[in-house]
Amino acid sequence: MKWVYTFDAVDKAEADVGGSWEAVRGLLGGKGANLGDMHRIGVPVPPGFTITTQACNEYIKLDESFPNDLVDQIEAALRQVEEETGKKFGDADNPLLLSCRSGAKFSMPGMMDTVLNIGMNDDVAAGMLDHFDDDHFVYDSYRRLIQMFATVVMGAREEPFEDVLAEHRERQGVTDDSELGVEDLHEIVDQFKENVRKYTGRDFPSDPNDQLRMAIAAVFRSWNGKRANDYRNAANIPHDLGTGVNVQTMVFGNMSGDSATGVAMSRNATTGEPNLEGDFLFHAQGEDVVAGTRRTDRIEMLADKMPGVYSEFRDIAKLLEDHYRDMQDMEFTVEQGKLWLLQTRDGKRTAQAAVRIAVDMAEEGLITRDEALMRVQPDHVDFFLHPQFATESRHDAVRRGDMLATGLNVSPGAAVGRVAFDPDLAERWADEGKPVILARPETKPDDVHGMLAAEGVVTSRGGRTSHAALVARQFGKPAVVGVAEMHIDLGDRTLTVAGRVIREGDWLSLDGTNGQVFHGRLDTRVPDIDDPWLTKLLGWADEVRQIDVWANADYPQDAERARAYGARGIGLCRTEHMFFEPERLPIVQKMITAETRAEREEALEQLLPHQREDFAGLFRVMDGLPVIIRLIDPPLHEFLPSFDDLTSELADLKIQIRSAANLEDMNRILEAIDEKSHMRARVEAFREQNPMLGLRGVRLGIMRPSLTRMQVRAIFEAACAVSLEGIDVQPEIMIPLTSHVAELARQREVLEEEAMAVMAEQGITIDYKFGTMIEVPRAALTADQIAEYAEFVSFGTNDLTQMTYAISRDDAERGFLVDYLSNGILEDNPFFTIDRDGVGQLMEIALTKAKSRRPDIEAGICGEHGGEPRSIALFHELGLDYVSCSPFRVPIARLAAAQAAIETDSATAT
Amino acid sequence: MKWVYTFDAVDKAEADVGGSWEAVRGLLGGKGANLGDMHRIGVPVPPGFTITTQACNEYIKLDESFPNDLVDQIEAALRQVEEETGKKFGDADNPLLLSCRSGAKFSMPGMMDTVLNIGMNDDVAAGMLDHFDDDHFVYDSYRRLIQMFATVVMGAREEPFEDVLAEHRERQGVTDDSELGVEDLHEIVDQFKENVRKYTGRDFPSDPNDQLRMAIAAVFRSWNGKRANDYRNAANIPHDLGTGVNVQTMVFGNMSGDSATGVAMSRNATTGEPNLEGDFLFHAQGEDVVAGTRRTDRIEMLADKMPGVYSEFRDIAKLLEDHYRDMQDMEFTVEQGKLWLLQTRDGKRTAQAAVRIAVDMAEEGLITRDEALMRVQPDHVDFFLHPQFATESRHDAVRRGDMLATGLNVSPGAAVGRVAFDPDLAERWADEGKPVILARPETKPDDVHGMLAAEGVVTSRGGRTSHAALVARQFGKPAVVGVAEMHIDLGDRTLTVAGRVIREGDWLSLDGTNGQVFHGRLDTRVPDIDDPWLTKLLGWADEVRQIDVWANADYPQDAERARAYGARGIGLCRTEHMFFEPERLPIVQKMITAETRAEREEALEQLLPHQREDFAGLFRVMDGLPVIIRLIDPPLHEFLPSFDDLTSELADLKIQIRSAANLEDMNRILEAIDEKSHMRARVEAFREQNPMLGLRGVRLGIMRPSLTRMQVRAIFEAACAVSLEGIDVQPEIMIPLTSHVAELARQREVLEEEAMAVMAEQGITIDYKFGTMIEVPRAALTADQIAEYAEFVSFGTNDLTQMTYAISRDDAERGFLVDYLSNGILEDNPFFTIDRDGVGQLMEIALTKAKSRRPDIEAGICGEHGGEPRSIALFHELGLDYVSCSPFRVPIARLAAAQAAIETDSATAT
Repeated sequence: MKWVYTFDAVDKAEADVGGSWEAVRGLLGGKGANLGDMHRIGVPVPPGFTITTQACNEYIKLDESFPNDLVDQIEAALRQVEEETGKKFGDADNPLLLSCRSGAKFSMPGMMDTVLNIGMNDDVAAGMLDHFDDDHFVYDSYRRLIQMFATVVMGAREEPFEDVLAEHRERQGVTDDSELGVEDLHEIVDQFKENVRKYTGRDFPSDPNDQLRMAIAAVFRSWNGKRANDYRNAANIPHDLGTGVNVQTMVFGNMSGDSATGVAMSRNATTGEPNLEGDFLFHAQGEDVVAGTRRTDRIEMLADKMPGVYSEFRDIAKLLEDHYRDMQDMEFTVEQGKLWLLQTRDGKRTAQAAVRIAVDMAEEGLITRDEALMRVQPDHVDFFLHPQFATESRHDAVRRGDMLATGLNVSPGAAVGRVAFDPDLAERWADEGKPVILARPETKPDDVHGMLAAEGVVTSRGGRTSHAALVARQFGKPAVVGVAEMHIDLGDRTLTVAGRVIREGDWLSLDGTNGQVFHGRLDTRVPDIDDPWLTKLLGWADEVRQIDVWANADYPQDAERARAYGARGIGLCRTEHMFFEPERLPIVQKMITAETRAEREEALEQLLPHQREDFAGLFRVMDGLPVIIRLIDPPLHEFLPSFDDLTSELADLKIQIRSAANLEDMNRILEAIDEKSHMRARVEAFREQNPMLGLRGVRLGIMRPSLTRMQVRAIFEAACAVSLEGIDVQPEIMIPLTSHVAELARQREVLEEEAMAVMAEQGITIDYKFGTMIEVPRAALTADQIAEYAEFVSFGTNDLTQMTYAISRDDAERGFLVDYLSNGILEDNPFFTIDRDGVGQLMEIALTKAKSRRPDIEAGICGEHGGEPRSIALFHELGLDYVSCSPFRVPIARLAAAQAAIETDSATAT
Repeated sequence: MKWVYTFDAVDKAEADVGGSWEAVRGLLGGKGANLGDMHRIGVPVPPGFTITTQACNEYIKLDESFPNDLVDQIEAALRQVEEETGKKFGDADNPLLLSCRSGAKFSMPGMMDTVLNIGMNDDVAAGMLDHFDDDHFVYDSYRRLIQMFATVVMGAREEPFEDVLAEHRERQGVTDDSELGVEDLHEIVDQFKENVRKYTGRDFPSDPNDQLRMAIAAVFRSWNGKRANDYRNAANIPHDLGTGVNVQTMVFGNMSGDSATGVAMSRNATTGEPNLEGDFLFHAQGEDVVAGTRRTDRIEMLADKMPGVYSEFRDIAKLLEDHYRDMQDMEFTVEQGKLWLLQTRDGKRTAQAAVRIAVDMAEEGLITRDEALMRVQPDHVDFFLHPQFATESRHDAVRRGDMLATGLNVSPGAAVGRVAFDPDLAERWADEGKPVILARPETKPDDVHGMLAAEGVVTSRGGRTSHAALVARQFGKPAVVGVAEMHIDLGDRTLTVAGRVIREGDWLSLDGTNGQVFHGRLDTRVPDIDDPWLTKLLGWADEVRQIDVWANADYPQDAERARAYGARGIGLCRTEHMFFEPERLPIVQKMITAETRAEREEALEQLLPHQREDFAGLFRVMDGLPVIIRLIDPPLHEFLPSFDDLTSELADLKIQIRSAANLEDMNRILEAIDEKSHMRARVEAFREQNPMLGLRGVRLGIMRPSLTRMQVRAIFEAACAVSLEGIDVQPEIMIPLTSHVAELARQREVLEEEAMAVMAEQGITIDYKFGTMIEVPRAALTADQIAEYAEFVSFGTNDLTQMTYAISRDDAERGFLVDYLSNGILEDNPFFTIDRDGVGQLMEIALTKAKSRRPDIEAGICGEHGGEPRSIALFHELGLDYVSCSPFRVPIARLAAAQAAIETDSATAT
């Protein structure tokens, strides 16, 4: 059995497992396979060898003893490494030092620490002093070996070692171990050895061969350690894979003046520019570059100082990029003029860089356009749409301790402003030119003007689909909601987090991208949506995607943005949002609480011109594209004052009356009581135990046909007028919350009658479509019947999720759903990522049935899920015509839609 | 073309249409076909003929003119009738008088009135006086002909004719037309003729042939009248069938002393006894028998007076019963000693008679057992289970004007008692032996002790699935809910309907069978569930039905009743109902609002013995049969005081504090405020916007595993104890409101652990099943995943309907659903009759999926629909194992299940 492969034997390993790279990774582990791979393509890698995962499994099977000839094979490999390096393991004059690392098929961070500097002992250390010009380094390396070995391999605790170091630091009056002198290090080495004896009952092995074998055995055992087991359980990795062990020559960038060490990216990780970017230090170790204690040089400097090494490195970077077909993040060391690559991996990058690199590489021919599209995460696109905090500024704030709390990141982007606790104040300050953050326990429709005026919104309650979240996303306002640690006292006008009190007018900074809330003003910067690479990438996305992207927009300015961001239609205009505008709300309330038909008709007549104007604006912006207008949807009580508020106001008035100063005062209070009582009675009439399952959607339209008529009239008057301006108007009228086809039949009758009347009045014919939301399970189940009347359907996945799961989205996210998610009963929040098994299945049933009756039915989705990439993948699979989402999510959806198409193609291909 | 068939030509008609009776009915209309049919089997029917529906269609096609030889064919048929009767149409000496009636294929009541006495004119009337000994009758018949003819055939209004009659009545000082003398009638005939001229512009046709032709044409035209069209639209009858016209000899039971007329049933319509039952009058017309103005004789008397006629009639009754295979309701006339049958039809009967007749006929071999089962309506069975108001007593009350209002008939039976407006008073009065009717605006769990104490319950609000309705049905208490006209003032202790004020303590009578509410005490009588014919019929039902019938029962006494009524298991024991008992509720509230774990555990420990005892009682009663126990289901706030009540109580206290008499008083109030505020805060924590979609069902069990553990422990401690008594215990534990399989997996873990622990403690093993409700659409859609863990599923169709339709049953029945039903958007209340297309489809999906994973899974339904016959038919089709319903609906369900099986068989056979 072959247990050991030197790095140059990767071809042999490949042959042994039948040629599959996957199998090589299984045999050698990911790290071992890659080290061999780099060697194979000619990258200088410090020589070494990999002990197979099979050896690990065998070791476990044999009750923790090495299989038969493993030691011999290690010996042989070691001899080969000695030959290649010209150094000798355990030789004091020219010592070969080794590192020993685990490496399983799948990356398992934290499974086991690395053991470095294996091969040192008193003799070797002494001998090394002749070659290194840095005694400190030698003894520091030695004490590190002992410390690592004792804790990682021999199972000692960390503390006794740290105690020793602390004692020496104190004695010398220094704060950092690097400041300790060689004398101290000598002593420390001795004390460490004593510690090993004391806490493990054994001596630190001075024989390098013992060190190596023990390290290897420790790696084997670590496979079954608790940390590793837990990790595998969590990551769904099989327990029988075993780990490989990589034994590799140590190289030192601090061995001499012509030694150096550094890290570099093959392209600029911030901007994506196609130039090497990195830092290095002469006569230094890798950790010195990272630690920032010494001033590093930029990688270009290497060209001056060591032009040969630089040019070799540049070539290697190119080679690795070509080989791995991605931007590489490389660690290198120059040991006495000789360049070694210690590691390469795909480089992390900013959103901006991700886009540019993907596009550049596709244009260079390194990757295909499809691959470029798959390389950019939809979240990367989001970055271009919202201001972001400058990295430095954020770091500073964290360092200062100004990060207050983290809540739900419901609407991305950075916002800075003075905190205001009520929407009117927010609006006033904004009018005065002050930037404002609106902070509320939770928001209501009444607060919308304050939200619009504010830079960002933060709430202590509410979830991903709370009012605050929905409105903020709709208007692209950064928002953080459900910050549970934050207590807002509307009486005291304060916001308290862990005892820290923020007063009204203080500065707050919100990061809606990751949910962080900061005290103070952070710097922001605004990326550019017109970034040429992003534009190009999204253009490719549009060519690839099969599902169209529309937007939810209630106002002309939303529609303008949506169009600019690439939306091909309006999938949802919520007519009731227009009702919430401050100057209209009183008319709406009058319409709702009217006690005579005449009163109601009058209010409706007052609303008509407002609605007509809104619709006309939308039609103008969307010239040539479809606009779906949904008739009024929410329960009417949402437009009225809160019952609980009225109750408590009434109670207050009744107390006041006891202390009325005089008869006049008394009369005034009595009148107020009368008025409030009256309103309270009206509001009570609209109270429902379960408003989500109550009088809303089409039910309103059926109970109040005059409301439907007014809305239809407004739509058609607007459409006729705008059409006469020469604009191509494509209205689609959508009925919400249908549960039975009869509802649709009735509404269509009313609608057709009113539409015909308006068109006759205006002397012009408008082509329009009639359709419905599918947001009630029954509508999905009877979509064949519904398709008889509906020329289009649009899935309202928020409600559909709510009904299918029987979870109220008003309540659940501060209730049990949070627990369900945190304790793993549900993997995903179904209001965020569509529930494939339940809601997805209903959608599939609905589509199949609807198409059986009307094969060309237009079908889309306009719930919150329309802008969520994983959900978009399902909608693509279901064959929907479009997703409709917030304008700010349109570019993201375009990319996600393309990715879904590419993934389906590749799944079909294999 | 043959347009006219005499009654003796029914065989020819049958031959002409190819032998199908269905086609004969199509050609001659139902009435015409039946007259021919009676004639054919030898029943003496006054001679006559039928003009075909084709003639009608042709008449319409020819723009309202008779087809070619129709008049000739009528003439010929008339001649035949004259021959058979020996009378002559239009002959003053021996006149043949005719009736003319419409008769379409399907009965269309109200399509057209009958025209009687055709053939009269001045001469004929004069001639008839020689033969009749009753001048009054002759002229009354004549004026009736003119009046009918004018209004029905010639299109005059009714009023001018009524005015004439009124004037004569006034002149003579009488109140009834029958009291008018011959002189008056002479005058009236003339005035009527004048009216015809005046209001139709034409003379009343004195030529009998004109009369006949005009009457026939009028019948033809009536087919396209508005009333007929509307009726066909409503009843889904095609518009192109046309109507037949039946022209028949008039016979007179008042022609002489040996003439008589009467009505009779072939069996007793009240008791079902197999004896002729009926009334007759000598020298009388049919209407005299019905009007009740003369004292009628019982049909047996005929045997003495006209033994030949009686014996002939008895034979005919038997012949007709055998022919039509059902109890017959017959009209007969004896004209000068000769018996004529004017009509026969299946007789209406009481519930008791329906059962007995069906069983008797099956035992006589007249019908099959299956037919007997199909003859009895499930509602008929209901009759045997509840007291009913005596018919006389009800009529008297209506006559007195004591019927107050009609509400929803949610729980059948009659109840009489003194009205009480709160449950405590109801209980106290009941304890004192007074019968009580509990009247409340609506009921809550707190009211249950009062409902149990009362004879019946009436509420002004609430729908078919309101708390009051559910509890009343569960306990078999007659109940009427949602009596909107009824205003209950809990302050004044009054109940007002249309200004009529009923005070606490006044007598009320409720009819839960039809929803009527009476003021005063009506007499009741109790039918007998042990009726031998019913017992036999239900026994047959059990042999035929394929779906089992179980019962919902929370208490041992429910289970006893269920078993007595034939339930084969308990399909639903709602454990939380036990929590509402007055002595337990405080412990439950402590458990819910506990602020420490210790407090909560203590409360749970106090509840444990109560639950154990309940379960033990159930197991004992159900020895050998399965008992499904559902773990706690409702939102916890249902066990707590109402938030609104607490708010208003707090407001009152705050007002009181202003008028505190002294410091002590003040302190007392302040303490009360503290306590209430505290409770209000706790209750607020449980408040949800949409509790139906909130923290309830399995979600409670997951958030509070100690509650699940307590319940499981109680079940298994009870099961072990009862099993040791030698009783066969078959517990099944059911998890409510599952929406995701992971919930089930978690609960099963907790359950198994606790169950194992108890069984180990008791040293005995109990076989049990683990399962879940399917009441959330997602559970239905993922039933395959759920079946992995569930050994049984039970459809909770109330919730499933609620979620599938997105209709809150708490709100809908006083909201839009009422409108939807009354204006025909929905045909059926989906909370009453299962929604086949939506909910039914989900159930089918669920069953298919569940069986794909676990083919032998036990599946039933335990919603309100389980006792509703049309819903049971669907459940049978779906192949459920059982329906579980209120004990009081078990016998009904047994019959409905049998009917479903028979209908499926017959559908399969054809």
